[in-house]
Amino acid sequence: MLNRIEQILQRARQERSRTLAVAAAQDIYVLTAVNLAAKDGLCIPILTGKRDEILRLMPEARRYEIIDCDSDEASARTAVSLVKNGRADCLMKGLLPTGTLIKAVLNKEEGIRTDRLLSHVMVYEAKSYPKLIFNTDGGINVAPNFEQKVQILKNAALMLKALGYESMIAACVCGAETVSEKISATVDADKLSKMEGEFSEYNMKILGPVGLDLAISTEACRHKRYEKEGAGRADILLFPNYEAGNCMGKTLTYFAGAKSAGIVMGAKVPIVLVSRADTAETKMASIALGCIVGGRE
Amino acid sequence: MLNRIEQILQRARQERSRTLAVAAAQDIYVLTAVNLAAKDGLCIPILTGKRDEILRLMPEARRYEIIDCDSDEASARTAVSLVKNGRADCLMKGLLPTGTLIKAVLNKEEGIRTDRLLSHVMVYEAKSYPKLIFNTDGGINVAPNFEQKVQILKNAALMLKALGYESMIAACVCGAETVSEKISATVDADKLSKMEGEFSEYNMKILGPVGLDLAISTEACRHKRYEKEGAGRADILLFPNYEAGNCMGKTLTYFAGAKSAGIVMGAKVPIVLVSRADTAETKMASIALGCIVGGRE
Repeated sequence: MLNRIEQILQRARQERSRTLAVAAAQDIYVLTAVNLAAKDGLCIPILTGKRDEILRLMPEARRYEIIDCDSDEASARTAVSLVKNGRADCLMKGLLPTGTLIKAVLNKEEGIRTDRLLSHVMVYEAKSYPKLIFNTDGGINVAPNFEQKVQILKNAALMLKALGYESMIAACVCGAETVSEKISATVDADKLSKMEGEFSEYNMKILGPVGLDLAISTEACRHKRYEKEGAGRADILLFPNYEAGNCMGKTLTYFAGAKSAGIVMGAKVPIVLVSRADTAETKMASIALGCIVGGRE
Repeated sequence: MLNRIEQILQRARQERSRTLAVAAAQDIYVLTAVNLAAKDGLCIPILTGKRDEILRLMPEARRYEIIDCDSDEASARTAVSLVKNGRADCLMKGLLPTGTLIKAVLNKEEGIRTDRLLSHVMVYEAKSYPKLIFNTDGGINVAPNFEQKVQILKNAALMLKALGYESMIAACVCGAETVSEKISATVDADKLSKMEGEFSEYNMKILGPVGLDLAISTEACRHKRYEKEGAGRADILLFPNYEAGNCMGKTLTYFAGAKSAGIVMGAKVPIVLVSRADTAETKMASIALGCIVGGRE
């Protein structure tokens, strides 16, 4: 069990460096983060994209392999092919639309899709909580159905396993604890909590429908007399829709000063998507996370 | 504009005391909060419910009017009738199922329904934000449609007006800023942002689809070059579904140490619903909020 984002960075430094293929790297934020991560021993970058622009933005990038590509599509295809050919362990999005990269990832012949769903996992270090929180899916799947939730949970479990977790607690976050036929999130959560067998290789406890308070506060569990094993101490928060996960994550960042890292799971290797608004620390931690998971899957 | 929950209590103390009808008051948490609020000059309680049980739990309650009722239904009906007859300005839930109270509220002949939708509004004081945040609806309407969102926003506007706001900024919180036909929350948010005329009596600016970051962080707005008037400084956060509002609120409480108060709007008077897990301060603030709004509507 980890409780700090820094432990993810430490772990990535200790391991053999993984190769990171960056699609359309001509973005100063992305280049800065990749360069810092490379110098810190977190990854070995291969940059695809507009070579002249990359070198103009960051002359230091000449120390890395750069594959010149004249379009977003070509950059995406080239970065994906580096993964497909086994040259890269992890993929990162640069200055191109997310859709263009995902299209290359999911391409049936040339892509790196698996039989799993793509889903986003954010990791948060919040001061008042004794563990890292793995929040999913606040980024990709808007309104996942039951089968998709199973896959989203598996993707998160794979990440925790790659980080060395031998057991884990997942909470199916809803508005409240009561199962109501009118609220599909609670019905799905109830079904998921009875499927621990499906997740036995991860040694996962699954809390049924719970309000967020019962997922992350043992004090709230005492107040409400909620006594399931792992209650109030979840590692993974599975959200019923992406707005809920997204709002919780942004509240942690903006109101609770939480540190974070995040990647997309479900392709042959993890995909690092950073936002301009992310801190340098978040960008590096996301790269580290991607490299660790990419080295394991 | 208010920035502290304490200002709500101050305002309630300064005004003429409002009468609070408590349905099924035989609950020590509810009685304690009501007694504290009454002593603090926030309200004049009338208790309905099991008189003997009420007096056993809190002998001090003999100083208040108690109407003996032998069932939850009778307590609910009696408390609602106090409002209907103009004797009470605000309603509070005691030890009875929420559904029983709401049924009495919505009863066509004996109830206190209006043509407005019932919706829940929570007020948060978060340290890092310079204003109170009015979060709606994380409690009642699970998946509101567009028309319901309009009504939820009006209910919140009424609350702010009752609190003395002469203008207000509302943000339609989504996962991100882009309008996508596939994501109904963004389509509704886009339509709402073009309806400021409908809310002109409240002098309300409405931000279209925004991620939570652009609703509450001016720094995030600068990073993402989002420049609408009021961006990053919302008073009201309108959520696309109740899980999102609920998760954001609980994150504020449990991770950011925010203070809060909350009531149900949309009936003839506000309804105070407190949870056992609420702090004494939250319970009193909710009563104060209910009494102020009940005195205004």
